[in-house]
Amino acid sequence: MSSLRDVAERAQVAVSTVSAALNGTRPVAAATKRRIEQAAAELGYRPNLLARGLQSKRTRILALLFPTPAGGFGHTEMLFATGAAEAAKELGYHLLLSPESADPVDELRHLTGLGLVDGVLLMEVRLDDERTEFLSAAGVPFAMIGRTREPDAIDHADIDFAATARDAVAHVAGLGHRELAFFNLSPGRYAESYGPAARMAGEFATAAREAGLGYADGFRPGSAEEGRQAFERLMAERPGVTALAVADDHAAAGVLAGVAARGWRVPEDLTLVLVLSSARAAAMFHPSLTTLEPPSAELGRLGARMLIDRLQGDGPPRQRLVPCRLVPGGSSGPPRAGS
Amino acid sequence: MSSLRDVAERAQVAVSTVSAALNGTRPVAAATKRRIEQAAAELGYRPNLLARGLQSKRTRILALLFPTPAGGFGHTEMLFATGAAEAAKELGYHLLLSPESADPVDELRHLTGLGLVDGVLLMEVRLDDERTEFLSAAGVPFAMIGRTREPDAIDHADIDFAATARDAVAHVAGLGHRELAFFNLSPGRYAESYGPAARMAGEFATAAREAGLGYADGFRPGSAEEGRQAFERLMAERPGVTALAVADDHAAAGVLAGVAARGWRVPEDLTLVLVLSSARAAAMFHPSLTTLEPPSAELGRLGARMLIDRLQGDGPPRQRLVPCRLVPGGSSGPPRAGS
Repeated sequence: MSSLRDVAERAQVAVSTVSAALNGTRPVAAATKRRIEQAAAELGYRPNLLARGLQSKRTRILALLFPTPAGGFGHTEMLFATGAAEAAKELGYHLLLSPESADPVDELRHLTGLGLVDGVLLMEVRLDDERTEFLSAAGVPFAMIGRTREPDAIDHADIDFAATARDAVAHVAGLGHRELAFFNLSPGRYAESYGPAARMAGEFATAAREAGLGYADGFRPGSAEEGRQAFERLMAERPGVTALAVADDHAAAGVLAGVAARGWRVPEDLTLVLVLSSARAAAMFHPSLTTLEPPSAELGRLGARMLIDRLQGDGPPRQRLVPCRLVPGGSSGPPRAGS
Repeated sequence: MSSLRDVAERAQVAVSTVSAALNGTRPVAAATKRRIEQAAAELGYRPNLLARGLQSKRTRILALLFPTPAGGFGHTEMLFATGAAEAAKELGYHLLLSPESADPVDELRHLTGLGLVDGVLLMEVRLDDERTEFLSAAGVPFAMIGRTREPDAIDHADIDFAATARDAVAHVAGLGHRELAFFNLSPGRYAESYGPAARMAGEFATAAREAGLGYADGFRPGSAEEGRQAFERLMAERPGVTALAVADDHAAAGVLAGVAARGWRVPEDLTLVLVLSSARAAAMFHPSLTTLEPPSAELGRLGARMLIDRLQGDGPPRQRLVPCRLVPGGSSGPPRAGS
C-alpha cells in the first residue's frame, strides 16, 4: 500500500504539499496539484479522504435527496441537481444523488447512520415535511431547495413566488387585460401540500386583486387533454377572460389546441403565459410562449452553498428567495377590441 | 466518540449484528436494522463506512460524470442519472453526481486520485473518448452509458440504434409511405462525434435502403426556427417526401409550424415521427406525435449494475443494447392519395 511519502517522492514535492493538495487545506499551484494527483493515481494511493474523514469525522460529501414525483423528474429538478453539484465541486465538496424510497425518514436514518455524508440537501419540499423534523432532531446539518410552511429556522433557497406572480400580473395588466385566469400545477403530478402549488395559488390571487384584475382559478390540468378541457370550462364560466397563466407545459399545449378548436388565435384572442417553465420549452410552442422561467440552477447552487457554509460555521439561518425571470414570447398581446 | 459496542448496547443487540446491519455483510431483520440505525444516529456513530473503506479500500461510491451539453441537460440524461442512482442504491452503492469541467481527463485524475470512488460511470460518450483511455490506463473500473467507436472491450449499455431505425422505417413503410426524410440531432447542441447522432445517421440510411424507401437526410435543425427552415428546404428539394423522422423536440415543433404555414395538416399531408424523445414530450404536440422513446432509465440502471458487477468480480466485458419503444401518436397516417 502506497503512503503519502511515496506520492511525495514520485511527484517530487514535500509530504506537506501532498497533504495540502489532496486535502485542500491550503492552496497549491495547479500544475503541482496535477502532478501530485497523477502520482497518487499511478501509485493507487487512495486512503487520504477516508483517513481524513475518520480523523475529522468529515467526508465533504453532501446528499441531495430526490423523491421521484409521479410525473417524473423535470428539467427544473435536473437543474437543481446539476447546479448543486457544480457549487459543491467549486467549494471542494461532492454531491451524492440519493433516491428516496417510500419512507423518506427511514431512508434518511439509513443514509445519515452510515456516516457517509456531512449534510443533506432537500428538494421537492412540502409545506409540512417530516424529513425536516427528522434531520433537526438528529442534528444533521441540512438545507432546503424550497421551503416548508414555517421555514424561518432553516437555511433555504426558493422561488420568490410573490414577486413572480406580481411580474406576471403586471405583464398582462400592462397590455390592457382586465381578466386573468390561472391554471395551477396538477394534484395528480404533485403532492397536495407541494409548496410551489400552494404558494402560487395564494400569490396569483393576491397579485391579481392588488392590480384590480378580475381573476379565476381552481383549475389544475396536468396533461394536454386536461388543459384543453379546463380551457373549455373556463371559457364557458368566464367568457371575459383574455389572459391565462398556466403552470404546466402539457396543459399549455392543450390550451393552444382548445384555442385552435374555437378558430381563435394566440395572442389575438388570448394572451397565454407559462409559469415555472424554461424559455427553451416555451420556444417549442407555436407561437412561442411568454414564460416566467424559474432560477433552477441558481437555487441548486444557493442551496449547496448555504449547506456548506453551515457545515463550516454557525450563524443565523439564511433565506434566499429568487423571482422567476419574465421571458417575452409571441403569445402576449393586447386584449381583443371590445373585451 | 461512540463505538460499535455503544450502538449495540443502545439497540440491545450483539456487536456482530450491528456490524452486519451497518456493513451489509449479512441480512438483518428490517425492524432490527432500523433500531440499530436509529441508535447509531442518536449516538452520532459514524466511522463504520470510512473505517471499512480504509480496510478494504472500497467506499461503495460510484461517480457519474456529467458533461453539460451546450443545450443543457435533458430529460433523457436526467433519467440516466436517476436510473443509475436507483440501481446503485438497490445494490448497496451510492452515486456521486460529478460535473465535468473543460478538461474531463484532469477532472477524472482529480476524482480518482481522491480515493473517493470505486468506479466511474460515463455518459455523453463520444466515438473517440479520451476519458475511456485515461480510465483504462489508470486501471479505474468504469462502464459507459453509450459507447465509443470500438466499445467491445468495455462494459456498456446503449440504445440499439439499428433496431430503432428499423422500427421507425417499418412503421412508416407499413403505412404505405415511399419516401422518408430524417432530421438528425443538431451539431450546435451536441459534439460532432457524439455517438447517437453518428449512429442514427448510419442506421436510418441503412434501414431505409433495406426497406426500399426513398431517403433524404443531412438536415440537423436544433431549434423550432431551424426546424421550420429545414422543412421548407426539404419540401423544395424533395417534394415527394411524405414521412419525416425528427430527433429534436424543438425542431419537430418548427416542422409543425412549417406544415401549418403551407395550409397542410399532420398526418394527412405529412407523417411526423419523433425519435429519442419521451412519450410525455410527444403528447405535448398537437396532434400528439408518434415517438420512439429511449429506454433511458433502463440504460442508467444497466450501466450502474454492470459497473458494480465489474467491481465484484472479473469476467468478459458485457454489452447491452436496448431499442427505443415505438409509442404511436396522432401524427402517423397513410400518405396523401397520389403521392
